[in-house]
Order: sequence, then C-alpha cells, then structure tokens
Amino acid sequence: MCDVCVAYQGSPGTVIEAFVLKAFPECTTVPLQRSEAALEAVESSLADIAILPIENAYTGSFHKSYDILLSHDLQIVQEVQMDVELCLLALPGVHKDDLKTIFSHPQYLAQCEHSISGLSVSKKNVDHGVVGAEIISKQNLRDSGVICSARAAELYGLNILECNFQDESPNVTRYLVLAKTANLPKEHDQYKTSVVFGLEEGPGALCKALGSFWKRGINLTKIESRPNRGKPMRIRGTEKLFNYIFYVDFEASMTDVRAQNALKGLEEVASFLRVLGCYPCSTTTI
Amino acid sequence: MCDVCVAYQGSPGTVIEAFVLKAFPECTTVPLQRSEAALEAVESSLADIAILPIENAYTGSFHKSYDILLSHDLQIVQEVQMDVELCLLALPGVHKDDLKTIFSHPQYLAQCEHSISGLSVSKKNVDHGVVGAEIISKQNLRDSGVICSARAAELYGLNILECNFQDESPNVTRYLVLAKTANLPKEHDQYKTSVVFGLEEGPGALCKALGSFWKRGINLTKIESRPNRGKPMRIRGTEKLFNYIFYVDFEASMTDVRAQNALKGLEEVASFLRVLGCYPCSTTTI
Repeated sequence: MCDVCVAYQGSPGTVIEAFVLKAFPECTTVPLQRSEAALEAVESSLADIAILPIENAYTGSFHKSYDILLSHDLQIVQEVQMDVELCLLALPGVHKDDLKTIFSHPQYLAQCEHSISGLSVSKKNVDHGVVGAEIISKQNLRDSGVICSARAAELYGLNILECNFQDESPNVTRYLVLAKTANLPKEHDQYKTSVVFGLEEGPGALCKALGSFWKRGINLTKIESRPNRGKPMRIRGTEKLFNYIFYVDFEASMTDVRAQNALKGLEEVASFLRVLGCYPCSTTTI
Repeated sequence: MCDVCVAYQGSPGTVIEAFVLKAFPECTTVPLQRSEAALEAVESSLADIAILPIENAYTGSFHKSYDILLSHDLQIVQEVQMDVELCLLALPGVHKDDLKTIFSHPQYLAQCEHSISGLSVSKKNVDHGVVGAEIISKQNLRDSGVICSARAAELYGLNILECNFQDESPNVTRYLVLAKTANLPKEHDQYKTSVVFGLEEGPGALCKALGSFWKRGINLTKIESRPNRGKPMRIRGTEKLFNYIFYVDFEASMTDVRAQNALKGLEEVASFLRVLGCYPCSTTTI
C-alpha cells in the first residue's frame, strides 16, 4: 500500500511505530494516545487503517485489544507477524552494573523477564517504553534503564546497552490491520476467519458451538474466552455463574460453504455472533 | 477445615487475605511475597493448601495463575467464588475532590475503571493495594487515594472514602484451592475437571482435541489458550507458527467413564496432557 494513512496507539520511538514503518514503509503515520482513538480515526475516515497488537508468542494475548475489537465496527483485513527486537537503553556512560531500575510497558518487561533477572534491578511499569526513556532523559537518571525500540535511543539521547534484550528469539508479535470495509477473499488463498460470539443459557452450549466447526472438519487456530462485560454474571437464585464471550479464529474463508454452514449452526446456540473479518493467513514474519 | 494452614501471595490488608479469612475462618495464614512461593510451601509441606486467584467476572483471567498452575505439581481440590468489595481509601480529612492520583494493582484499577473515570485523577500501578496504602501513609500524601480492602484502612490509618467502589456488583472473583493430594470425588455431586494440554502438529489438531469432548456430550465451561513458553513458536522453513497450550474446564468427574474416554481420545492428538484437578462445582459466592 502506498500513501496509506495508518492510525495506532503510540508515539515516535515506540515498538508499534517500528512495526508500522516496516510493514507500511510508504505510509503516513497517525500516532494516537489510545488504541480506541486509532479505530475511531478509521471509523470517521481520518485514517485508512488502524493497527492493533493481538498476541505475542511468549507472553500471550493482548486482552484489551480483544475488548476493543468488539466495541468498534471495523473489519480485520490482514494479519502481520513481526519479529520484535527490544533494546536496553540508558544514558551515555551508564553501564549495566549501574542500573537499579528498569522502566517499560508490562508486556516488554515480561518479554525480557529472564534477561532482567540477571541484573539486580527493580521493574517500573510505564504506559510506553518511550515514557521511561523521557523520564530517564529529562531527570538525568544515571541508575535507570528502559526497554524500548532502538529508535528511542536516538530520540532521547540514550545509548543502547544491549540489542535483542528479549528472552526469546524470534520474539514474534502478531498485529491485526483493521479497515472500514472487508477485503473480498480470493478463492485459492489460505484464508482465516475471526468471529466473536456469546452463548444462550442451556446445557452444553459451548460444546454445541464448537461442535459446529468440528462436524465440518474446520480447524480452529485460536480460542479466547473473555468476560461478557455487558453482563459478567448470570444470576439464577443463589447461583452466580461466569458469563463469557468467545473469540474464535478458524481456517476457512467466508466464501467456503462449510464456513457458512458452521456459522449457521453456531447461530442456533449463540446469543450474538459477529464476523470480525476474513483475511489471508500469514505465517511468515517481517 | 479447622486449623488448616493456608499459603497465598499477599500481606495483611490485601484482598486475598480478606478472601482467606472469609473462606477459612479458623485457619493459620501464611502470607508470602509471590504466588509461586505459596505453591512451594505446600509442595514442601510447610502449608496444607495454597490459594490462587484464577478469574474475575469483569476483568477476566489471571493469566499468570495459569502459568503457575502448570509449573507446579499440585492438585486443584476446590473452587471458591467471592464477591470482592473494593474500597477507596485516603488520609483522614482528605476528600474525593482533593485526589490527583489513585494507587492500586492493575486488576483493581480495571475493576473500578468507570468509578475512577468520574474523578480527575491519574492511575498508578503497584504490586498490591497495600503498597499504595503504605506509600500514602508514610509520605503523608494528601492528594492520593488507594483502592484496597476495608481492613487496609485500619492497618494504615486511612479513612474509607467509598465502600463498594468497584464498577460491578456482584464483583465475583473465583479462587482455586490447591493441595498435594487429590480429593476423591463422590459420585453424586456435580464435579468439574481441569486439564491442560499441548497439541501435536498436524491438520485439525485442536478440532480433534475438542471433538473428543463433543462426541461424548461433555460440556466445557472454559477454554484458555496460553503461549507454550517452553516452545512459543513452531518453525517450518520460513513459516513461524504460534504454539499454544490449552487449559480446559469440563463438567464431569474423573470417575465418569465418559471423561476417562474423552481424555483417552485427547491423548491421541496431545503432545502432553495433565489433569490439574477434579473438584466440586461451586456456583454460589461467599
């Protein structure tokens, strides 16, 4: 895509900016304070696409992204995997042994848990790694480091103490690309469809819901249970039952009759069902 | 249980301590710094049972608890649901309008998201609400509040500005009780079994795995996908595929032949399979 306008939650130097510049090198970036604002920018046609990180292979799902998908009316049109490189940064002249504190987003602290445990430091959560970089730079903190993208070093006058500071390589994060209108699937590509549904009360509802895929030999690639935030509990007399919604990714395109029938079967036990998107499977990384 | 020795991650005044004192009023408490230490205390017979919070109806799963379940060799012997009451605390004489910052654990900040949005404050993450209570008390912070248990007010000389500060009532959290040896299920109670498994490579593996329950009419109550931290990616040439493990709760006891057969079927496609416990379903709250 050329000159596409890409909205995302982030600011210059964040890891998601590094992703956007790599995935869409010719794009106009629209960095925003919140992911919700990025999706709203697309809804109101101020941007063409929005980016949501959805899962990291090592630390798992970005659960808030699942909630945001549901509360907005966009379509997933693409998935892109990136091998995320995290760097440990500090002020010039500061060595690893000088560090007493490491700042970063909780997800990045988790992706570097083992590397961090080798240092005698405490961890401090910030909303973005760059927030930590700014604090270190402005307050001239010579006993603190931050886990961030390499570009943040340039922007905040820091040195890279270690590249590839993450515990696992490849450290793959999967991102979703969202747009206002769906892409029409081509028949011969390998497609994936993402749906979200709630279930009617009754015995065996989840079993019946998943059976609808099983009966048609459609493979599921992921199942994510999330609380039904509109109605987190079902109350029956003294019984209080957890009430979930389910996000399912399956390997079939919506042009496939099996997929259409599976969703018809699912509708019979679902309190609601929404197709979040149908897009080409991507198994390589950028 | 009388005089049972209960280990958990927490300190006096934490919400989990309130849970332990309510669920096991005659117990000896063993508060520890980390959940892992609580499970290790049971493994080494220093405590009888360990407590893990597993999910909140509003904010979802405690994902770290799932990882900890896998890395320790204990059995789930009971589940207990509690209606968690969160209080907003501050120094005596401080009013809601004076607050500029609210401290708490990210889960509790999330459970009070709407209530907080009504105040003009910034949120600060701490490992436990009581850490925030201690900071406010020691540093005499008259512009800060903390979300915590009512008992923390007594312990740290704070006032309760608002009871039931959480957005949802009932605000139910489900806790697991772990012990060294399994309880033998009685035949006529309603039992639940929790398992965790990985999958062999091959088409439709997850579909086959779940089909093993579906074919036998066994209802699943929860499915949780987590990264396989030992091997987060499957690499095939240039393809990099996410590699999950699955936590499944189903409504049947291990004495039920259907459950035994379902697990035999599951074993055929599983790279590993472990029964985490078999315990009575609990749908009421304390």
